[in-house]
Amino acid sequence: MAGYHVASLAKLIEQFERMPGIGHKSAQRMAFYVLHLSEAEAKTFAESILAARENIRRCSRCCNLSEAELCPICSNTARDESVICVVEDPRDVIAFERTHEFEGLYHVLHGVISPMNGVGPEDITIKELLSRMADGKVQEVIMATNPTVEGEATAMYISRLLKPMGVKVSRLAYGVPVGADLEYADEVTLTRALEGRRIL
Amino acid sequence: MAGYHVASLAKLIEQFERMPGIGHKSAQRMAFYVLHLSEAEAKTFAESILAARENIRRCSRCCNLSEAELCPICSNTARDESVICVVEDPRDVIAFERTHEFEGLYHVLHGVISPMNGVGPEDITIKELLSRMADGKVQEVIMATNPTVEGEATAMYISRLLKPMGVKVSRLAYGVPVGADLEYADEVTLTRALEGRRIL
Repeated sequence: MAGYHVASLAKLIEQFERMPGIGHKSAQRMAFYVLHLSEAEAKTFAESILAARENIRRCSRCCNLSEAELCPICSNTARDESVICVVEDPRDVIAFERTHEFEGLYHVLHGVISPMNGVGPEDITIKELLSRMADGKVQEVIMATNPTVEGEATAMYISRLLKPMGVKVSRLAYGVPVGADLEYADEVTLTRALEGRRIL
Repeated sequence: MAGYHVASLAKLIEQFERMPGIGHKSAQRMAFYVLHLSEAEAKTFAESILAARENIRRCSRCCNLSEAELCPICSNTARDESVICVVEDPRDVIAFERTHEFEGLYHVLHGVISPMNGVGPEDITIKELLSRMADGKVQEVIMATNPTVEGEATAMYISRLLKPMGVKVSRLAYGVPVGADLEYADEVTLTRALEGRRIL
C-alpha cells in the first residue's frame, strides 16, 4: 500500500480488501466510489452495515436469517409443515425460494460437518433440526446440502439420526444441469445422471 | 430481490450492488461477510466509510486527495518543483509513485474534457494548474492523461494554454507495453511504437 499517502483512504481500501473475492484493484475502485458519495449516502451506507449486523439473528425455528423471532417463511401458515428442506446456507434458501416450487419449510445448518476444518456435528444446527421432529408433524426431510464430499457426509450423518425417528429422509436428485453442455460434464455427474435416468 | 425476506440484509446488498463492478452475487457475498463480522469489526468498517468520506479533501496545490491542506507529495521539500505530471485521477498518482522514478510534483485533473458527458474545461482542475505557473518555478509539464480520445484532447487543450506561458509541455511516450505480445497489440499502438522507435 506504499502508494497511499491518505491514511483514511488506505484504511477503507483495506476494509474492502478483506471481503471474499475482492482484490486490491476492486477494493481501490470501491473506496473511490465511497469518496464520491454524498455525506447522506455515505451515512446510509455505513448505517446499513451496522443495521444488518445488529438486526439480523437466527429464526428460532429454522435458523435462517431473520429480523423477527420467527422468519417470514416459518411464520407463513400457508407453508406445508410436513416437509423440511435442509440446506447449508441462507443463500440456498433464497435459491430454492426463487423456484417457487417448494411449499415446505427449511432448516439452515449454517455449515457442514468438516473434521478437517474442525467443524463437528455440534457446530451446526443439527440439534435444532432434531428438536423439530418432536411434535411429529414432519413427515419428510429433504437433504439439500451441497453435492460435495462434506455435504454428502453431513446428509448421511443427519439421515442416520432422523430415520430412527420414523421420518422419511430424501436427497436431491443428481444429474446434468439443465442447459449445460454434456461435453463438459464431469464423469461423476454423468454417471449419476445415468443412474438416475427416467423412463419416458 | 424477491428471495430476500430480511429487509436490512436486502438493504445492505443493495448498497454493495451500487458499487462499480459489483454484481448481485458479489454484493450478496459481501453482505454475508458483514453478517459474520463481530460487533467491533462492523463498527470499524462503518466508521472507515464515514471517516474517509469526511477527512479526505483535495490538496490545495495539486488537487490530489489529501487529509491535510497540502498532500504529502506537495509538502515533501525533496521533490522537484520544476516538473509537474498532470494526471486524470488520483489512482494515476499512485501508479506513478509505484515506479519510484518520478521525483516531480503532480496535478490531478479529476476528469477529462468530455463534451459528450457534459464535462467542460471548467469542470476539471485546469484553472488550478495554470495558477501553479504563476511563480515561474515550473519548467516542464508532463501530460499524463490516458491515451484515449478524451485524454488526448484534454492534453492538447491544456498544452495550448501552457505553451504561451513559456513552459515546456511533454506527453508520455506511446508504444507496446513491456511484456506484451506484439501479436495482440492493436494497429494504432504498433504504429505509434514504430513512430517512436529509438536507434540502438
